[in-house]
Amino acid sequence: MRILLVGAGGVGAAFCAIAARRDFCETIVVTDYSLERAQRAAAQDERFVAAQVDASSAEAVAALCREHAVTHVMNAVDPVFDMPVFSGAFEAGAHYVDMAMSLSQPHPERPYETPGVKLGDEQFAAASDWEDAGRLALVGMGVEPGLSDVFARYAADHLFSEIDELGTRDGANLVVTDEAGNEVFAPSFSMWTTIEECLNPPVVWQDGDWHTTAPFSEPEVFDFPEGIGPVECVNVEHEEVLLMPRWVDCRRATFKYGLGEEMIGILKVLHTLGLDSTEKVGVKGVEVSPRDVVAAVLPDPATIGPRMTGKTCAGLWVTGTGKDGAPRSTYLYHVVDNAETMAEYGHQCVVWQTAINPVVALELLATGVWQGTGVLGPEAFDAVPFLDLLTAYGSPWGVRELDA
Amino acid sequence: MRILLVGAGGVGAAFCAIAARRDFCETIVVTDYSLERAQRAAAQDERFVAAQVDASSAEAVAALCREHAVTHVMNAVDPVFDMPVFSGAFEAGAHYVDMAMSLSQPHPERPYETPGVKLGDEQFAAASDWEDAGRLALVGMGVEPGLSDVFARYAADHLFSEIDELGTRDGANLVVTDEAGNEVFAPSFSMWTTIEECLNPPVVWQDGDWHTTAPFSEPEVFDFPEGIGPVECVNVEHEEVLLMPRWVDCRRATFKYGLGEEMIGILKVLHTLGLDSTEKVGVKGVEVSPRDVVAAVLPDPATIGPRMTGKTCAGLWVTGTGKDGAPRSTYLYHVVDNAETMAEYGHQCVVWQTAINPVVALELLATGVWQGTGVLGPEAFDAVPFLDLLTAYGSPWGVRELDA
Repeated sequence: MRILLVGAGGVGAAFCAIAARRDFCETIVVTDYSLERAQRAAAQDERFVAAQVDASSAEAVAALCREHAVTHVMNAVDPVFDMPVFSGAFEAGAHYVDMAMSLSQPHPERPYETPGVKLGDEQFAAASDWEDAGRLALVGMGVEPGLSDVFARYAADHLFSEIDELGTRDGANLVVTDEAGNEVFAPSFSMWTTIEECLNPPVVWQDGDWHTTAPFSEPEVFDFPEGIGPVECVNVEHEEVLLMPRWVDCRRATFKYGLGEEMIGILKVLHTLGLDSTEKVGVKGVEVSPRDVVAAVLPDPATIGPRMTGKTCAGLWVTGTGKDGAPRSTYLYHVVDNAETMAEYGHQCVVWQTAINPVVALELLATGVWQGTGVLGPEAFDAVPFLDLLTAYGSPWGVRELDA
Repeated sequence: MRILLVGAGGVGAAFCAIAARRDFCETIVVTDYSLERAQRAAAQDERFVAAQVDASSAEAVAALCREHAVTHVMNAVDPVFDMPVFSGAFEAGAHYVDMAMSLSQPHPERPYETPGVKLGDEQFAAASDWEDAGRLALVGMGVEPGLSDVFARYAADHLFSEIDELGTRDGANLVVTDEAGNEVFAPSFSMWTTIEECLNPPVVWQDGDWHTTAPFSEPEVFDFPEGIGPVECVNVEHEEVLLMPRWVDCRRATFKYGLGEEMIGILKVLHTLGLDSTEKVGVKGVEVSPRDVVAAVLPDPATIGPRMTGKTCAGLWVTGTGKDGAPRSTYLYHVVDNAETMAEYGHQCVVWQTAINPVVALELLATGVWQGTGVLGPEAFDAVPFLDLLTAYGSPWGVRELDA
């Protein structure tokens, strides 16, 4: 397997650190808009090489694939570049893996009732091309989407005879401090993407169809395991809701994110002021996108690891009827402690947790355990070997039974 | 009197509209960084001419003074340009009027206890130069500071034998709607200046000295007159606190601004994220100041008048001992209804209320009713002719007695 990694930011660099410990790949061509950033991530293993890339150009991605005889493109850039990377991989005859799907467009008249263009629609539109070409685009293969979708497959195959709701629930108790030890606001994930996810109309699957709601709808306090505790969660637009119902029978699919009160307040203010906008505005002779400015003033999520403490939890809350015919309510989860990922890998827990899952998936593809063609989500594959290999990587998952 | 008006934004344009109805000045040279904006404001009267100016250059201001034989420079630009305009006027031998004083710098170690460089310190440092030259710099002569300071003089001369507190209190019930009639966030005053005022450490005069506090300190609900009603007010850094105690005996001087809950929340978020910063940051190849971006995404305060309803109130709450020896608590105020200023002048009430006061003051200087040399605040002059002329302009003031 010869991988082209597009994007050497927080997740891309952690991907390299994890893959460096495995021997399934012959090389990783580590690329980024910043060659220096690519070189830093590639320096972790002598099998890796660095190159500069413009991820907005399908031609540039395809040319790198051909130059390095790439078999698999691993997309780790902002989802705004999904389509050129996806198309570039196809043009060059490579397989493709990403961790976030092509972007949505709200419905022009009824944004908070009906989906417009949905997450992944552009990618699924090309499904028959990939299938005809006998090649695989494995989409949404991070932690959420990704591991959460693997949990959905596992629940359907091994725990439930009938599923009412597949409810992805994400929460953390992470705290970042400054040099003086004071708590500061420093999101552990791309602020650009957080704004995109949280201010787009959240999508819900219900009784055979998708509908949308207003941002921050249906707040709920979910009690997260391993000491994280209760966190306020709200509906957020996320790929799981679009992926899971395509392969797993369920009455309802939701994604709720434990944003917490402060982040919800901040996102609301950014929206009120129009600072969430990606349309460029003129500012004293230059043109900038306000959302890019918001991302630029915050600390780089890849750099906050040493000043962060706490754990992050990704998981899937499944309700329905168990294999024994009795009502069942189960939370399948994966908790990562920042202290451990920093000590072991030198990467903060949120980006590390996102990055480990595509490494596991690529190893399953490299060894032929996972096989498929077309545009497929993680729930299209057998969950057991994935969960076993994740555990073998030293990062086990957990199950908590709740009152049904 | 030949006036050089520096700045033809919201307040500058309203200044021209008000001055156009008076005959005390021979000409106004209306200048702005944007010549087109200057021309638009100057078009209101055939005595007015337009020119371009770089307000950051004292030389440019002085050259315009000489070219047009200017007697008085009227500064109506952002206070960040105070010192070049002030110095340019002095160099060219003109008198000077502004509505906001030279900027403060927080104390490097104890920002929320002790003032660093105070508002106006740079201007007062030049007081003897102005006095020796026999010329006047009348500083802080808008509505707040400005009319509030005139009220302080009036209270000391005519209402009180001893003053405990001179408490400027500013509140409004303004609402801005979009084309569809939905309420939107659109500050009626420069957002850049609002951030500057509200996030700088508020300054308080107490028992003979100035000290600072944390932003938004000492919240208090003040009941504003003429239908505005109760509004939550907090301490804000403002010129009155620096000006009043220099000429009026008082135990305490404060400024509290009726920001309201939404604005306080927004300012806190901007500060948390670092979007209040004026330091330029790199954003995808260009350099911008985050605060400039915040100002750029909001509607121009000069354009929101037609979509705004409500009233704004500037005033001074004075407590102490009345002339009769009994405890007294009096609010001296000036309320302006947006519907009236829009109908009468085509300018929204907040900028109009700021602009009318320097027109009144310049008329008193032109007619010799007010005379002085040095760097002086409005409370250094007799309040009665000012308040009478303001009333003659059609904009009366009011008095409300409170429980003492």
